[in-house]
Amino acid sequence: MAEKEKNIWIGFDLGGTKMLSIAYDNEWKELGRRRRKTRGREGSDSGVERIASTIARMLDESNLDREQIAGIGIGCPGPIDLVKGRILTTPNLGWDDVEIGAFLKKKFDCPVVVVNDVDAGVFGEYEFGAAKDARCAVGIFPGTGVGGGCVYEGKILQGAGISCMEIGHTRISSSIRASGISMSGTVESEASRLTIAAEAAKAAFRGDAPYLAKKTGTDLSEIRSGAIADSIQNGDKAIKRLVEESAEVIGLAVVNIVHILAPDKIVLGGGLVEAMEDLIVGTVKKTAKANVMSVYKDRFDVVAAKLGDDAGVWGAAAWAKSQLTAK
Amino acid sequence: MAEKEKNIWIGFDLGGTKMLSIAYDNEWKELGRRRRKTRGREGSDSGVERIASTIARMLDESNLDREQIAGIGIGCPGPIDLVKGRILTTPNLGWDDVEIGAFLKKKFDCPVVVVNDVDAGVFGEYEFGAAKDARCAVGIFPGTGVGGGCVYEGKILQGAGISCMEIGHTRISSSIRASGISMSGTVESEASRLTIAAEAAKAAFRGDAPYLAKKTGTDLSEIRSGAIADSIQNGDKAIKRLVEESAEVIGLAVVNIVHILAPDKIVLGGGLVEAMEDLIVGTVKKTAKANVMSVYKDRFDVVAAKLGDDAGVWGAAAWAKSQLTAK
Amino acid sequence: MAEKEKNIWIGFDLGGTKMLSIAYDNEWKELGRRRRKTRGREGSDSGVERIASTIARMLDESNLDREQIAGIGIGCPGPIDLVKGRILTTPNLGWDDVEIGAFLKKKFDCPVVVVNDVDAGVFGEYEFGAAKDARCAVGIFPGTGVGGGCVYEGKILQGAGISCMEIGHTRISSSIRASGISMSGTVESEASRLTIAAEAAKAAFRGDAPYLAKKTGTDLSEIRSGAIADSIQNGDKAIKRLVEESAEVIGLAVVNIVHILAPDKIVLGGGLVEAMEDLIVGTVKKTAKANVMSVYKDRFDVVAAKLGDDAGVWGAAAWAKSQLTAK
Amino acid sequence: MAEKEKNIWIGFDLGGTKMLSIAYDNEWKELGRRRRKTRGREGSDSGVERIASTIARMLDESNLDREQIAGIGIGCPGPIDLVKGRILTTPNLGWDDVEIGAFLKKKFDCPVVVVNDVDAGVFGEYEFGAAKDARCAVGIFPGTGVGGGCVYEGKILQGAGISCMEIGHTRISSSIRASGISMSGTVESEASRLTIAAEAAKAAFRGDAPYLAKKTGTDLSEIRSGAIADSIQNGDKAIKRLVEESAEVIGLAVVNIVHILAPDKIVLGGGLVEAMEDLIVGTVKKTAKANVMSVYKDRFDVVAAKLGDDAGVWGAAAWAKSQLTAK
Repeated sequence: MAEKEKNIWIGFDLGGTKMLSIAYDNEWKELGRRRRKTRGREGSDSGVERIASTIARMLDESNLDREQIAGIGIGCPGPIDLVKGRILTTPNLGWDDVEIGAFLKKKFDCPVVVVNDVDAGVFGEYEFGAAKDARCAVGIFPGTGVGGGCVYEGKILQGAGISCMEIGHTRISSSIRASGISMSGTVESEASRLTIAAEAAKAAFRGDAPYLAKKTGTDLSEIRSGAIADSIQNGDKAIKRLVEESAEVIGLAVVNIVHILAPDKIVLGGGLVEAMEDLIVGTVKKTAKANVMSVYKDRFDVVAAKLGDDAGVWGAAAWAKSQLTAK
Repeated sequence: MAEKEKNIWIGFDLGGTKMLSIAYDNEWKELGRRRRKTRGREGSDSGVERIASTIARMLDESNLDREQIAGIGIGCPGPIDLVKGRILTTPNLGWDDVEIGAFLKKKFDCPVVVVNDVDAGVFGEYEFGAAKDARCAVGIFPGTGVGGGCVYEGKILQGAGISCMEIGHTRISSSIRASGISMSGTVESEASRLTIAAEAAKAAFRGDAPYLAKKTGTDLSEIRSGAIADSIQNGDKAIKRLVEESAEVIGLAVVNIVHILAPDKIVLGGGLVEAMEDLIVGTVKKTAKANVMSVYKDRFDVVAAKLGDDAGVWGAAAWAKSQLTAK
Repeated sequence: MAEKEKNIWIGFDLGGTKMLSIAYDNEWKELGRRRRKTRGREGSDSGVERIASTIARMLDESNLDREQIAGIGIGCPGPIDLVKGRILTTPNLGWDDVEIGAFLKKKFDCPVVVVNDVDAGVFGEYEFGAAKDARCAVGIFPGTGVGGGCVYEGKILQGAGISCMEIGHTRISSSIRASGISMSGTVESEASRLTIAAEAAKAAFRGDAPYLAKKTGTDLSEIRSGAIADSIQNGDKAIKRLVEESAEVIGLAVVNIVHILAPDKIVLGGGLVEAMEDLIVGTVKKTAKANVMSVYKDRFDVVAAKLGDDAGVWGAAAWAKSQLTAK
Repeated sequence: MAEKEKNIWIGFDLGGTKMLSIAYDNEWKELGRRRRKTRGREGSDSGVERIASTIARMLDESNLDREQIAGIGIGCPGPIDLVKGRILTTPNLGWDDVEIGAFLKKKFDCPVVVVNDVDAGVFGEYEFGAAKDARCAVGIFPGTGVGGGCVYEGKILQGAGISCMEIGHTRISSSIRASGISMSGTVESEASRLTIAAEAAKAAFRGDAPYLAKKTGTDLSEIRSGAIADSIQNGDKAIKRLVEESAEVIGLAVVNIVHILAPDKIVLGGGLVEAMEDLIVGTVKKTAKANVMSVYKDRFDVVAAKLGDDAGVWGAAAWAKSQLTAK
């Protein structure tokens, strides 16, 4: 009996709080999707089972044939061993050394490509979104941390075989503030959403952000992107200044990246950017343009991401296709 | 009819959350005390009435004769116009330009001396506590802000007639972090209890402070001195490091103060210091001794305050007596 | 035989490169003066002899009677033990523990008052120059280091009996740059004339300061105040920016001092300030006013010193008179 | 008549003070070399003629046939437009927009590949020296500035068609110190040889580096790598500390680079490193290993360059061969 045509590409995004799986055909038409909570704290064993069952249910719901799967691309948080398809460590989930590639390959009997989730998102924006046709595209995504990724000459940049572009963990100031690694003064310690939330809580506590104090309070966990944007729109100037300062730091991080990689496109994405796109993209761009060496000034642009939450899933699937069909 | 002997000294401490009044005789025996919530947000008009009624009730409860009041000393937060006995501004209470001295003088028909609350506390420690017999005593009190005061040759240091020693608002680093004034990188932005609480909340959110995360959560308002001490005792190393960093910053602030004022005694006080006395006083002292110019190294000591909450009330009363009996 | 009237006051300024002695009558009319090279590196033994012989020659040249000397005031660099009249250490001269007070007292059989040279200069400006009638006057003198002094309620501020106001050695930034003490990021490491000279030499070397490069070169020892001013006037913008940055740092140091001491008058002096008075005083004042807490903003002024090199000699003599006639 | 075999590869290194040309055969046997002063300040027109005549004389001296030249690779300072073979700007020489590629191509009638000089040096170390077989090799060369280059998967990393890896111009601290670009606190402002020289001159001036003061003096232009190494060997501890601080900053720059590019090999080179190899390579490695995220810790090594001055010439020739034979 003839083998079935392999024409289904599955993208998967393993996030800190939720996971998302989408199936595509060869022309990237969506064939099915399923979203679910991650529950990372229950451990990696039950986690990988949950990933597999999410994919399985999506296939079932959409009547897709497993034997037609051409490949799975899965984006995971934290550093990835790209050669072995292994999650090395994910601080957010508390998982270490997870052979997610091998596991899914066995489960679905198809090739699996594991990639860092931010890299996947940048690849998505490069293939289908805000960074199309860039020769060197860099993505920066400020959230709890500050993630980064780079697509260079059509491929995800990966140093000596390990995901990199940990822009959030590069040092940019002499601040003593930490961000979960030993080196202080990093982009993440100065400019993450978590840092904005902490400084905003202080301002609220001191009485310098009355709207935020009244509406949201001083609990970091509650001061999310929407609450921050809302506070600014309702007149909390101290909070606006915090977001600008954060964007200025990211602007200086862009300068560093331009001086190191000379990308032609910088894409800013994530919930914080979506909630305050004009303020953040505008400030980052202005700071970057004012501080780069003059030869680079007209050779790059700073833009907002276009694909939202789907970037990572779509990018993971596209990266898998690109890797598997090139071979 | 003969005038009654004036032998009752009243001390008053106007705090951000509570007010405390104590009456003393000439030998500083306590004759009565009354504590009450401040309710600063109800405004300064009702506030000063509340102060007066607190004193009045204390007198009544202890059967003290108003005509025997020799003087009232009142310590108030924020910069004070010492010549006019006026509160200039109190960010914590939201009061501006309050003629508290004139008001109480009229109400109780006795001399009133207004002083900054931290200055009062330092004067208390100088007269009765940890800084007895110092030629130049400096107090540093890390709390929501970082307060300071100085007693120089027996008198509260007061520049050109306005309370000073705003140690918390001196710049000590290149940090962009604010603390409610325009200049960033201050002792307060880097080392206040509020800053420790904010960084602790971040650590809890990131999963680096499991005990704090579970026991107290990520709300700054809940992360008080006791919660911080408790978290350290239960193994949250990241939180211990935060307190040490804060104490190191205060240690460098001590270096600055020694190089400017050459005090022989530095007193550290407040709830945070009380909750972790060994850790904080030890770290501050070590940092200060390691960084001062060698000629100053053996000429000052760093000690913990001894009088607790009473320092400010007692000091205010003693300062009033010192000012009024000297004239 | 009747004792002669004691009506000659001698002021002495021991500088790093030159020493200056002036004799005054009771109304501060100058009776004689003598200037000489210091030659500090020949050691303190020959140094104190040189001081004594300078005074002696001045007396002889002007036909002044030693028996009429009411007192000698001598200003010396570095921390001074004010109680014992002893130079503790002078990095510039390489002298340690010099009993200069006792030595001169024996030599001239008259009372001697030893004071820090910058304190003397500030006292001079307070008595006769730019800080007359100030309740609290602070002087800042940027040179090889950055000296400071304070006159508070008519007296030189002196902590617990040792000269202080080492403003140059207070920490103001997170810079790793040193200035001869263990603590980095000090006012001196960031804003001294020596630091300006070093950064200017770098700019000259890089080609960013063509006039300075051509006229003066890249030797720190040659890049003195005059050369810096000259380079700015001839179009070296990078050098102007360096002086402004230095003045901005001093402006922040002024903020710190205002928040600690609340002076009503800040006097800036020394060769660098004299060479570029408008640029430096203007920038310091602007930075300070923009960054102090609002209650202090209208309570202090920043002005240039008026007395030039004589301030220290005159101030030393006046301080001696003030100390000796008060007793 | 049959065309001659093209088997001579010419490498050229255009330095700030001297230029060097070497001719190689196909197996990298050296066939001839010529060194000459650059005299960049005479302008780019005479400069390119000088480059051409240097190559011409080398060919003549070694009896090499121009018609056998397979290609020329020339490494030039500053950012290069790699597509057009154009020097964009060279601050050290004062040249802008020089069509060096087209000029040499016309002159010698052979293909010419223009590359950044540091990139060429790193490529040389990658092909023949300390970074052989690396998947991702990064070179850092601290000198007047701090140069950088990267060979990724066998090719010089070049972003969107322009040389990059300007590691010296990435921000790493909050220092206000400049380095010829608008952004302050860069690796170059904190860690270049020029910065070490300036701080060393300050130490010498202050009396903290007696050997350097006596032997070399306080002129930046004289305080070269050899003088610095000499001063350390003769006991100037303050100078040793300066070199260590500089190496610590470079160590943090290595952390940033590891977090961005995940290289497996970091090569440190240049005159400063050669003069103090153990001190600098050791300190950089220690700082880098102590501060990278743990997953990267065992995935990179820090080593000294092996090829010395020839790296750039050899690398330029090898890069030309690699580019021209691949097409």
